[in-house]
Amino acid sequence: MDVAIAGGGPAGLTAAKYLSTAGKKVVLFERKLSVGGGMWGGGMAFPVIVVRNDSKHILEEVQISVKDEGNGYYSADSIEAVTKLCSSAIDAGARVFNMISVEDVLLKGKKVNGFVINWSAIEIAKLHVDPISIRANYCIDATGHVAEICNIVRRKVGSLNTPSGDLEKERSMCAEMGERTVVENTKEVYPGLVVAGMGANAVYGAPRMGPIFGGMLLSGKRAAELILKKL
Amino acid sequence: MDVAIAGGGPAGLTAAKYLSTAGKKVVLFERKLSVGGGMWGGGMAFPVIVVRNDSKHILEEVQISVKDEGNGYYSADSIEAVTKLCSSAIDAGARVFNMISVEDVLLKGKKVNGFVINWSAIEIAKLHVDPISIRANYCIDATGHVAEICNIVRRKVGSLNTPSGDLEKERSMCAEMGERTVVENTKEVYPGLVVAGMGANAVYGAPRMGPIFGGMLLSGKRAAELILKKL
Amino acid sequence: MDVAIAGGGPAGLTAAKYLSTAGKKVVLFERKLSVGGGMWGGGMAFPVIVVRNDSKHILEEVQISVKDEGNGYYSADSIEAVTKLCSSAIDAGARVFNMISVEDVLLKGKKVNGFVINWSAIEIAKLHVDPISIRANYCIDATGHVAEICNIVRRKVGSLNTPSGDLEKERSMCAEMGERTVVENTKEVYPGLVVAGMGANAVYGAPRMGPIFGGMLLSGKRAAELILKKL
Amino acid sequence: MDVAIAGGGPAGLTAAKYLSTAGKKVVLFERKLSVGGGMWGGGMAFPVIVVRNDSKHILEEVQISVKDEGNGYYSADSIEAVTKLCSSAIDAGARVFNMISVEDVLLKGKKVNGFVINWSAIEIAKLHVDPISIRANYCIDATGHVAEICNIVRRKVGSLNTPSGDLEKERSMCAEMGERTVVENTKEVYPGLVVAGMGANAVYGAPRMGPIFGGMLLSGKRAAELILKKL
Amino acid sequence: MDVAIAGGGPAGLTAAKYLSTAGKKVVLFERKLSVGGGMWGGGMAFPVIVVRNDSKHILEEVQISVKDEGNGYYSADSIEAVTKLCSSAIDAGARVFNMISVEDVLLKGKKVNGFVINWSAIEIAKLHVDPISIRANYCIDATGHVAEICNIVRRKVGSLNTPSGDLEKERSMCAEMGERTVVENTKEVYPGLVVAGMGANAVYGAPRMGPIFGGMLLSGKRAAELILKKL
Amino acid sequence: MDVAIAGGGPAGLTAAKYLSTAGKKVVLFERKLSVGGGMWGGGMAFPVIVVRNDSKHILEEVQISVKDEGNGYYSADSIEAVTKLCSSAIDAGARVFNMISVEDVLLKGKKVNGFVINWSAIEIAKLHVDPISIRANYCIDATGHVAEICNIVRRKVGSLNTPSGDLEKERSMCAEMGERTVVENTKEVYPGLVVAGMGANAVYGAPRMGPIFGGMLLSGKRAAELILKKL
Amino acid sequence: MDVAIAGGGPAGLTAAKYLSTAGKKVVLFERKLSVGGGMWGGGMAFPVIVVRNDSKHILEEVQISVKDEGNGYYSADSIEAVTKLCSSAIDAGARVFNMISVEDVLLKGKKVNGFVINWSAIEIAKLHVDPISIRANYCIDATGHVAEICNIVRRKVGSLNTPSGDLEKERSMCAEMGERTVVENTKEVYPGLVVAGMGANAVYGAPRMGPIFGGMLLSGKRAAELILKKL
Amino acid sequence: MDVAIAGGGPAGLTAAKYLSTAGKKVVLFERKLSVGGGMWGGGMAFPVIVVRNDSKHILEEVQISVKDEGNGYYSADSIEAVTKLCSSAIDAGARVFNMISVEDVLLKGKKVNGFVINWSAIEIAKLHVDPISIRANYCIDATGHVAEICNIVRRKVGSLNTPSGDLEKERSMCAEMGERTVVENTKEVYPGLVVAGMGANAVYGAPRMGPIFGGMLLSGKRAAELILKKL
Repeated sequence: MDVAIAGGGPAGLTAAKYLSTAGKKVVLFERKLSVGGGMWGGGMAFPVIVVRNDSKHILEEVQISVKDEGNGYYSADSIEAVTKLCSSAIDAGARVFNMISVEDVLLKGKKVNGFVINWSAIEIAKLHVDPISIRANYCIDATGHVAEICNIVRRKVGSLNTPSGDLEKERSMCAEMGERTVVENTKEVYPGLVVAGMGANAVYGAPRMGPIFGGMLLSGKRAAELILKKL
Repeated sequence: MDVAIAGGGPAGLTAAKYLSTAGKKVVLFERKLSVGGGMWGGGMAFPVIVVRNDSKHILEEVQISVKDEGNGYYSADSIEAVTKLCSSAIDAGARVFNMISVEDVLLKGKKVNGFVINWSAIEIAKLHVDPISIRANYCIDATGHVAEICNIVRRKVGSLNTPSGDLEKERSMCAEMGERTVVENTKEVYPGLVVAGMGANAVYGAPRMGPIFGGMLLSGKRAAELILKKL
Repeated sequence: MDVAIAGGGPAGLTAAKYLSTAGKKVVLFERKLSVGGGMWGGGMAFPVIVVRNDSKHILEEVQISVKDEGNGYYSADSIEAVTKLCSSAIDAGARVFNMISVEDVLLKGKKVNGFVINWSAIEIAKLHVDPISIRANYCIDATGHVAEICNIVRRKVGSLNTPSGDLEKERSMCAEMGERTVVENTKEVYPGLVVAGMGANAVYGAPRMGPIFGGMLLSGKRAAELILKKL
Repeated sequence: MDVAIAGGGPAGLTAAKYLSTAGKKVVLFERKLSVGGGMWGGGMAFPVIVVRNDSKHILEEVQISVKDEGNGYYSADSIEAVTKLCSSAIDAGARVFNMISVEDVLLKGKKVNGFVINWSAIEIAKLHVDPISIRANYCIDATGHVAEICNIVRRKVGSLNTPSGDLEKERSMCAEMGERTVVENTKEVYPGLVVAGMGANAVYGAPRMGPIFGGMLLSGKRAAELILKKL
Repeated sequence: MDVAIAGGGPAGLTAAKYLSTAGKKVVLFERKLSVGGGMWGGGMAFPVIVVRNDSKHILEEVQISVKDEGNGYYSADSIEAVTKLCSSAIDAGARVFNMISVEDVLLKGKKVNGFVINWSAIEIAKLHVDPISIRANYCIDATGHVAEICNIVRRKVGSLNTPSGDLEKERSMCAEMGERTVVENTKEVYPGLVVAGMGANAVYGAPRMGPIFGGMLLSGKRAAELILKKL
Repeated sequence: MDVAIAGGGPAGLTAAKYLSTAGKKVVLFERKLSVGGGMWGGGMAFPVIVVRNDSKHILEEVQISVKDEGNGYYSADSIEAVTKLCSSAIDAGARVFNMISVEDVLLKGKKVNGFVINWSAIEIAKLHVDPISIRANYCIDATGHVAEICNIVRRKVGSLNTPSGDLEKERSMCAEMGERTVVENTKEVYPGLVVAGMGANAVYGAPRMGPIFGGMLLSGKRAAELILKKL
Repeated sequence: MDVAIAGGGPAGLTAAKYLSTAGKKVVLFERKLSVGGGMWGGGMAFPVIVVRNDSKHILEEVQISVKDEGNGYYSADSIEAVTKLCSSAIDAGARVFNMISVEDVLLKGKKVNGFVINWSAIEIAKLHVDPISIRANYCIDATGHVAEICNIVRRKVGSLNTPSGDLEKERSMCAEMGERTVVENTKEVYPGLVVAGMGANAVYGAPRMGPIFGGMLLSGKRAAELILKKL
Repeated sequence: MDVAIAGGGPAGLTAAKYLSTAGKKVVLFERKLSVGGGMWGGGMAFPVIVVRNDSKHILEEVQISVKDEGNGYYSADSIEAVTKLCSSAIDAGARVFNMISVEDVLLKGKKVNGFVINWSAIEIAKLHVDPISIRANYCIDATGHVAEICNIVRRKVGSLNTPSGDLEKERSMCAEMGERTVVENTKEVYPGLVVAGMGANAVYGAPRMGPIFGGMLLSGKRAAELILKKL
């Protein structure tokens, strides 16, 4: 396996698509029955997503219809967006597994080199059943606001590749900057582990915001680019 | 609205696609955040669906990769199947709404002519909030095993278009026949209301079985054909 | 006590207002912390109610702003409607108790002559604590779709004042008729017990529908008129 | 929008009324189906509120019947108080939305300039659906003991306009002082954000007490006055 | 064992006291941690019970203070009543076990001759653990409104010693009669099984009412007398 | 597969052991994480089982220590009993799968010829995931009191091989007979389906009793013998 | 009111009895429906309590039968113990209220002078209803291991009358010393507030142990003696 | 009692077997109905365990079938492993109690000398019932990842026999080392208390990993050896 991705929301699916397109062997694990994360719900349950000019091409590349709303904003059907992002990743060769939880990471020396996984049904049912492990050259934490994988690694290794070496506190910031920061915060936080999507903001202390789907798409793309430089 | 569909599983999505392709105005209401129903989970959580020769073309028409397993059986990735069925319906013009529950039907004289809908979040949260109604020339009950809409109509009108006028009891039957019967049972059970998918078997007393996704696809297609003859 | 009312939704509050205005001693018991029932939520959580010409005056009599929507329909703010209906009943002299459940009725000979009440917190907390009883010349069941009080009486006395002597089944009916029937079904279903609001439809088998707040207001007014003729 | 208020209890409704009366555009978001907060329940579920001379006028201005209990104390029906406070705010022009949760604030530079809102049904149903944001010149945190909005801002900006810059600890204090302090503590705790009602005591470390509805009414009025000086 | 009693509410405790006083070996099983049943809560959570002249002596025999309320009614502290009824039964020699559920009866030929018991903690914890059985010459069902033991026997033997041979429907009846009927209905409903307390009304179809503690005390005493004639 | 067994309690494990010992290919599906069913808990949570002379040999054949308690009764450690019964079945060649639910049966003509199974974690987690089916010449319903499989077949085929063709009602019967009847009731209730253990009593209307582990062991053995005559 | 007691377990009931016997006006608030606390359950659900010589007289003074178990240990029926302790307190004049929660304390200057109470049903039902306050010269915290009242005071005033001024950590200690320490730790932890029963150990850091009912009785008696010296 | 063991997973059962075989009086308390812990579930619910050469003999000594998987790895049926480990411990003389929770330890001077136990059903049912205590010369904490007993002792005595005197933080480490460390970490962490199984890693800060059943078996054996040297 070249890359293992935890989380099948917009950032994880986008990363999967670009990495697979580049010929890498990619597997994506989604905890729920369905992929797509928060994108299904659009904003406040109206199934529409709004993106800016800089991420519009990611939608258009996978044939999602985009409507110009003026002022550099574009809208799309959130259900169309989820389904086409996902099928484009599969078409590019990514292997998507649903109902699988990433419980832990494999650490080899000072590098993350895989995930420890289990059926999420077992987690929900609170059965006492042990997980198994799978190896990958690179891992992406696209689990969202909670940044679960980054938290696990931080707890185990004591220090991440962040300014303080730790998870940052949420900072005060103008809301408009949220989308830009989620892309900038997409980084290799520990050797072998790249954080993408809202988890990137959570790790680097940027504000939690309303739907900034454009930022998540760009973050997924950036995570793919970072890894492609290394592999 | 020409056709309103309750339930976004494989039968509902397939019906939506064929009806929209034929130029009808279609709206589909799905109770959950994501469409796809039981198809995401494949069989026993392995994300693979198996269909027979007669339904393979429905998958292929929407560019789902199909693998020949011999003996007239074909397999596909269940996640690819869900996402491509859904995006093909949207591409054909269907309007898909998630997080909406169909609570009741509108009855005008002796015909179903619409749905009474509400946010499913309100149902889950058990808030006391009334629904609103929407009109449609034809309605499809694709809610699955429970056949919720058929049950509502039966309770209200006293008699359905079934052999006994009532919901039938589950009959003893060879398992192989299940897939065929789900297609045959796809009928207009009351003026204005067509039942499709596993609900068709539930109404006509055919056995509940394991994954017969092929039957559900064919049932969705047949429901579309039945309505197209009338509209 | 002249009249005891179970349920503080629109029908119960309206009945309380007209009965108090006519000089009767009225007490209303509401199970929840707040009165208003389903009216707070308007239709599908948009806080607006829509009524027809025949019930508009009930809103206007209590200074609720009404907007003409054309075709004989009028809209109002649902929150304004609840609060003004309630305060008008209190201003007229009705005594409103919240957090009280009506658990049973008092029967004297062949007449309902009061309620058996308890704290609803005790019900929710599932504590084993007995209720107490209060007497009233007339009782109104304004508990809504469930028609709890009518069900209790039916179970105890064996027969109600309905066509079959029993609770009727839900009938097939044009949706537009629902609002009219809720008023017609407002009757003395057993000596001493008048049913009002959606419970009236539930007892007489009319369809459960979306928000027909106008019907509920008229039903509450009719319940008051029926009782005023008797007292 | 001039002012956005989070929380529809007595302080929030009173603030809404005075601000609207002064001609400001006001919107109030209440998480529950009904406004009124703890005032419905009076003291220990007996639906009566007791206020002192200094807040009596707020009740009388909206035609709530007040009974002299001697020693400078006055009682009123708690249900009448809730419904008339709310309808007076609506009559003055305030727009009240129920079933809406304030999840976060908008920060622009060093000023709160709006709320991030969602359907509370979505929160209760634990659906993964993103919120949207709305702008306002001033915001009021009237969410009560929890002071949710102040907590969010404190976490994000690091320092509030309190003696310690932080949320204060609950202090020892004579109970009679509670009512006075809730008014004194009604302040602009961060540019653009005024705290009112019991949240004011929670932020400034005054004791949590039994029902001091008079204090809450005065606090709501003071919050309105503070903002009117600025706008 | 001479007599086994299921249920430690007022009827069960009273029966235990009179049977033990008469020299019988008595064991009482109470499902909860504490005995006393609904008597702790008095009426609507005010800890007072009200009885009539005919049952006053049962309270006075165990030194419970009784206050004359006029019109043949007497009140007592409900907590004093529970604790003294229980300790008088223990002083008389009864053995009281709490936290034990009676799951079933032993049937020998056409007679109830014991109970099948288990820890109620096991029931609550839903553990799969089998019960054990204990024998007794006579059994009393003092489980209250639900009349659990009578229901079990009815299901197993097909017919009880009631007018219809079955459990009766709740009848219409003047509330004042409830207390008298609970005593009259205290009978041997099947060989070896006497029903006492509110269960007696439940079996014979008398109305469920508010607190009629006097009737329950008399019913417990009568159950004891019926059994003493047989043993 | 020769025989598929649903339920890994004492009857199912005993049947598995005798069938495997006779050379049949046996698979046993247990819903829980651990096999053993109610035998772990002994009687009322004291980990001891008591059997009579006629079933003692089944324990002794698998080296379970048995203590003579007199009067033809023998006791054993319930934990030793579960673990040795299970390991003896595995040693004999049976394949035991835990955490698997039997959701339905396969019917071919008028014969049960397999089970429809799923992960029980998926059932508990209430995920919408379809089952798969497995074939077997004979099936045993050892699911206990609920007799789940028999109920499914009864619902589907309309008639079982019982005196009434239906599930029988619980009959009145001397408790001592319970153990004997569970063995006598071990029968082929429908072609291809044998019921064993407490389910046998449930189907044929014998009483539900306390721990009669001896009867369950003998029932499991008898089920094996019945099938061995046919295969 | 002279003394208000929070908690009706063995320590609270014993304190109530001695204070009332000495002529003080005592009120005891118990959160549950029944008083008695953990004493009902004896040890590990066997309804027996074991005490030593030093506390035996407290049982004997209220006519509880005591059995000499040798070595200075005595046993009693736990149900008899609860009921007689409680009725002796009531006979001595104490007023016991069940189903009442103590939510907070009243602080006047630097002294606890009363409790803030509410219906516990309202707490359980999570209704938003405010409490009321009652005054008393002395208060006893007999709420058990949690020492709720002491915790509230500590949080509000910053310092208790303990060695560190704070709640102490649990210390290592020989189990036999637990009973002695619970008596020694019975102290006035803040002016106006005495802690009794297991809460005394919790505040002073003594170990949590198995049933030491003798210590709790002695602690209740000591709390009474401490207060009688002051009043 | 020589040794008391908390937890009946693979480490606890193995320790029980070796200690009993050496002639010690051993009692093992398991909280659940069944022993075996996580071993029933194998890896990700496939009932297979994989061990290395160094622990294979522990399986073979109790007649568990072992299959050579190459590279020094061996597999076994997880259900066979649980049942044979347990029955071998019982055959060796260990007394196993299920459904018992260890709530606390007995401390005498500076040594653990027993457990404080209760029915786990009482814990689950949240009944207020006190535990009892049992003495043992040595205690083993085999409760798994949570290391409950070690945590209790740490809280009470302030310092454990670990490098820091406290529970260690989880360290970064190559996954392959986990199995070895669980054996090395099996130590007497406080006089009288040995930790075994995954709890050993939890106390000493080694990583939490997937199924390392071999390590748990060896850890149980080592715990037995450590104690045998002392007793």
